[in-house]
Amino acid sequence: MATENSSVSVSGRLQLEIDVPALAAVLDGEYAGIRDLVRTNLVTHAAVLDEADALGIDAFRERVRDVVVQLAATGQTGMGFPGAYGGGDDVGASIAAFETLAFGDLSVLVKVGVQFGLFGGAILHLGTDHHHKTYLPRLVTGELMGCFAMTEVGHGSNVQALGTIARYDPENREFVLTTPDEQARKDYIGNAARHAELAVVFAQLEVDGRTEGVHAFVVPLRSDGRVLPGVAIEDDGRKMGLNGVDNGRIRFDGVRVPREALLDRFAQVTPEGRYESAIENPDRRFFTMLGTLVQGRVSVAGAGVSVAKVALAVATKYADRRRQFTSSRDTEEQVLLDYGLHQRRLLPLLARTYALHFAQDVVRGQLHEVFSSIEDDPQARRRLESRAAGIKALATWHATRVVQECREACGGAGYLARNRFAALKRDSDVFTTFEGDNHVLLQLVAKGLLTDHATEFEDLDQLGMVRYVTGLAVETVIERTSAHKLLERVRDLLPGGDAWDREAGLLDSEYHLAMVRFREEHMLAGLARRMKRGIQQDEPGAVFSLIQDHVIALARAHVERLVTEAFVDKVRALPEGTEKDALGLLCDLFALSTIEADRAWFMEHGRLTVQRSKAISREVNDLCRKVRSLAVDLVDAWGIPAAVLRAPDLVGPAD
Amino acid sequence: MATENSSVSVSGRLQLEIDVPALAAVLDGEYAGIRDLVRTNLVTHAAVLDEADALGIDAFRERVRDVVVQLAATGQTGMGFPGAYGGGDDVGASIAAFETLAFGDLSVLVKVGVQFGLFGGAILHLGTDHHHKTYLPRLVTGELMGCFAMTEVGHGSNVQALGTIARYDPENREFVLTTPDEQARKDYIGNAARHAELAVVFAQLEVDGRTEGVHAFVVPLRSDGRVLPGVAIEDDGRKMGLNGVDNGRIRFDGVRVPREALLDRFAQVTPEGRYESAIENPDRRFFTMLGTLVQGRVSVAGAGVSVAKVALAVATKYADRRRQFTSSRDTEEQVLLDYGLHQRRLLPLLARTYALHFAQDVVRGQLHEVFSSIEDDPQARRRLESRAAGIKALATWHATRVVQECREACGGAGYLARNRFAALKRDSDVFTTFEGDNHVLLQLVAKGLLTDHATEFEDLDQLGMVRYVTGLAVETVIERTSAHKLLERVRDLLPGGDAWDREAGLLDSEYHLAMVRFREEHMLAGLARRMKRGIQQDEPGAVFSLIQDHVIALARAHVERLVTEAFVDKVRALPEGTEKDALGLLCDLFALSTIEADRAWFMEHGRLTVQRSKAISREVNDLCRKVRSLAVDLVDAWGIPAAVLRAPDLVGPAD
Repeated sequence: MATENSSVSVSGRLQLEIDVPALAAVLDGEYAGIRDLVRTNLVTHAAVLDEADALGIDAFRERVRDVVVQLAATGQTGMGFPGAYGGGDDVGASIAAFETLAFGDLSVLVKVGVQFGLFGGAILHLGTDHHHKTYLPRLVTGELMGCFAMTEVGHGSNVQALGTIARYDPENREFVLTTPDEQARKDYIGNAARHAELAVVFAQLEVDGRTEGVHAFVVPLRSDGRVLPGVAIEDDGRKMGLNGVDNGRIRFDGVRVPREALLDRFAQVTPEGRYESAIENPDRRFFTMLGTLVQGRVSVAGAGVSVAKVALAVATKYADRRRQFTSSRDTEEQVLLDYGLHQRRLLPLLARTYALHFAQDVVRGQLHEVFSSIEDDPQARRRLESRAAGIKALATWHATRVVQECREACGGAGYLARNRFAALKRDSDVFTTFEGDNHVLLQLVAKGLLTDHATEFEDLDQLGMVRYVTGLAVETVIERTSAHKLLERVRDLLPGGDAWDREAGLLDSEYHLAMVRFREEHMLAGLARRMKRGIQQDEPGAVFSLIQDHVIALARAHVERLVTEAFVDKVRALPEGTEKDALGLLCDLFALSTIEADRAWFMEHGRLTVQRSKAISREVNDLCRKVRSLAVDLVDAWGIPAAVLRAPDLVGPAD
Repeated sequence: MATENSSVSVSGRLQLEIDVPALAAVLDGEYAGIRDLVRTNLVTHAAVLDEADALGIDAFRERVRDVVVQLAATGQTGMGFPGAYGGGDDVGASIAAFETLAFGDLSVLVKVGVQFGLFGGAILHLGTDHHHKTYLPRLVTGELMGCFAMTEVGHGSNVQALGTIARYDPENREFVLTTPDEQARKDYIGNAARHAELAVVFAQLEVDGRTEGVHAFVVPLRSDGRVLPGVAIEDDGRKMGLNGVDNGRIRFDGVRVPREALLDRFAQVTPEGRYESAIENPDRRFFTMLGTLVQGRVSVAGAGVSVAKVALAVATKYADRRRQFTSSRDTEEQVLLDYGLHQRRLLPLLARTYALHFAQDVVRGQLHEVFSSIEDDPQARRRLESRAAGIKALATWHATRVVQECREACGGAGYLARNRFAALKRDSDVFTTFEGDNHVLLQLVAKGLLTDHATEFEDLDQLGMVRYVTGLAVETVIERTSAHKLLERVRDLLPGGDAWDREAGLLDSEYHLAMVRFREEHMLAGLARRMKRGIQQDEPGAVFSLIQDHVIALARAHVERLVTEAFVDKVRALPEGTEKDALGLLCDLFALSTIEADRAWFMEHGRLTVQRSKAISREVNDLCRKVRSLAVDLVDAWGIPAAVLRAPDLVGPAD
């Protein structure tokens, strides 16, 4: 209404009114088309959300497989494959489709991820023409199901130390796959318990008595639904969630596959049994292979953001209608979202979800660029891998936290399975673990920062890294991030000069950027100095354990800087208008609540006075009050189909 | 080994060796007997942990009912009832039994809580001799199952505003129960969907056209398993967890019950239809009735602590055997618990679990005293109610957090249902909501502090409270907590005089106590001033919303002070020896990590210098390293039977 539109709020700002479709267009961006296709498919298959509980585990697995095959027929799951094999030739669109699919049942999502992302991605990126021709056409339709057999009981995070062996037998020109012990048993492998015909198996390649490191092989597991000789498969059984995905364990007892089974893009074995690779360093080779699978992490990051969106959409809509308690006996009870505390619980999380959305845009864009370019750009690849690892960690932890807060904010109704939280919580829980444990990923991010992107050293083990960093990079890092230089650089950015951290406006995005940049650089320098000191004191083995919390803190600071930049850049690039104003408000709320959450660090490092720290908390409260009236529009702009919100007691029936 | 026992650790402290049975005796305390009975019963019925997934929901509900009846036959569930009716005459023991039962399947636990705590407790505490004689003998054995029908769709937290009506009909000397609208439908009621023969129904009593407020009535729901006329019951269906408990919805359509159905301990209706109560003020009457049900909150608090213990026992044992990554290529991979980060993730949580254990001892002791005394002590009652609300909130949030952190620390194996986390997570999730939403409970705690325990005003609504506090109590609170007096008091406690907060030893428990006491008093004064200012500015309606985050912060600070005192008191009371030393170490870790977590506040309020704040973080790291070698013994001392840890992939098979 015009009157509302021009009404002036307490803060003196004009009250905003959001044009939801316009904001949705900003959010969907260039992938609006594929996202809308997925939304239509989600509505078509919305019943699967009920079937997760209604069907037994066996029937539900079959149902999920059927849905996946039907989705494949619409083209949404094949966007990342070459057109020649029935794909869409658009990596970015494949990620956007996956993100949108995460609004719905997460077993369907993860089965899509296993089949087309992990299994299909390994065939595509580690294989060559022969493998593409043989497998991709039937794989892209979902007719040929496969699995990605990397993780072993003994090695989930440290996959370079896998135990499965693939020995080349030159006489028969075959590889012989063996599981030498229980620790080397493949485990938690999606599609393995029931549907996979093939597996891409990661194993230590042995040629002529020499171990050449981990390589990938295409190994048939089943024929006509029967497990093949030499292969032993156990069902992992029921899991906390994602029970539409058939995870299982695999053992190999001398399974023979032809020489062509080696996915040979980065290394080959000649018929006579000579090992060849264009990448000499075995560690580099391994990480190059792994690097091609980065889209898995980008996908899970995006799914984490979508899960957070679903939870927040339900909790926000509920809080906007649910009344409880009254401020006096004679008045109607008050709407939950009008309570300051409830705003504090939900709205900074909403702002952070928007921030991660735009950060995801950036990493998806980088992925698309790296995988669509003809020329390989190693630096762009490494930047992508680091960013993907970092955003994956932050987005999935965010999802876990948001789902929990939103469930609690919806009380007992939030606990009923017919509303959405039960499924969201159990199904998304493992996001923080799969595609790389979040803590391990953040250590990778920190390692990248410390070694200053020196390619030749990305293969170092911990001690090696410590030694290397001490010997070479630390000096550079320390020099680059000396307190003096840091302050100089920041001073240039902000009008306040030396007093930038005291005089800048709290709502100045340059101030926000300066704060998160300063924190990152300062932590990096501090960590480098600590490593150096540790080594000099001659306890190198203990150094890493002692500084590990600093390593994680640095990585978080780095990723939060990237997220802040992504959000600020996005807002700045928008044309003037209510979308820009609304997103600007959210960006302020995100940035200030991020600084507030770490205000102890900023105070400890002289970048925040006590007065200013308190002022930031007050400002966050003010921003929450301003965002409150926009909250429902802001969650509506995500375009989650009502049919998949599926929380009738909380938001009303879908229609 | 003697050599190890006398070995000197890096810190110069003698390395401790814990006598696990001796520490277990300290933890079990006076209730070792009943706890051991429950442990035996847990082992007997350990199979129920598997049946939660193996059986369908209907069969599992029956199974859980059977287990509950069998437990009742051992006497463990009836400890809180009078001996005359088959009980154990020992309230404290009934809580201790419940806490121990929480090591096992939580559907069994919650069904026990519904039957004997809520339903049985209401009959016992709100009824009189007639009700006791009629119901308790069959109730205590579990033969007569009942439910506690308080919560309604429209009113979960604000139960004083319930909508169900019980009108007295003097002609027939009956009450007529009616559900006037959908918002007044009883919901989430445990035992309602299937097993309850009776319900204790909370309804607005109407006598002679006058509403007398909420009262409780015994209402038959079923006879021979058939739902009675006028009663409509729906099944809540599947929930996130606790699916062995049959929750349901109840509507009453003119259901008639005799005059004796009123649980009439605090108010009576004469046959002619005259309402009588010894408690004149209707609000006070309501809160007196509610107050008798405080054992539910104490029980859930204890269950929360036990859930945290199970999760930590699994994660700690796993971290002590699981190896991943190596610090150099030639050495064995490193045990997870030797990583500094892993210690940081688990060990402060372990310390806090111990702290909450001892805080639970205190609140259980107060409950036992209040409910075992012949004379009523209103002040002791109120102190108990506030403490129970506060500990319940902190303990259940702690449980949620611990389960999540421990699941993540156990990786993919932690996600399999055959290991324990899936059940722990889904079943304990609602602990933060039932028996009072945690945020609402903390507001009650803060209200108690602000009104300075003025009984006559505990019935005020929010605005009333704001006005009252402003008019009367705030001045007292402000006076009592003026910065000057605060500092004076603290100065007397610590040797450092004016510089107490800079010179006291970081491991001095007087320092820890001074810090948490100062924080609480300072927050209380600040909140009182804010309320006063808010009222003076004549926006009373908005005051509460604006200060709500301060209200919650105060309540947390208050409860953390109580928890710290409980832990410190316990350690001080122990005789010299390794148990005292080990618990002292844990107490330091708890106190310092608590201060560290809120170090921003302490810096903002001038009680922590930047240098000291950093020193505290270093000290927490040091303490983690010291506790690390004790960690497995510390979790073993909780005495969780191996059969109910049930995480074979993480801690090995049960025997």
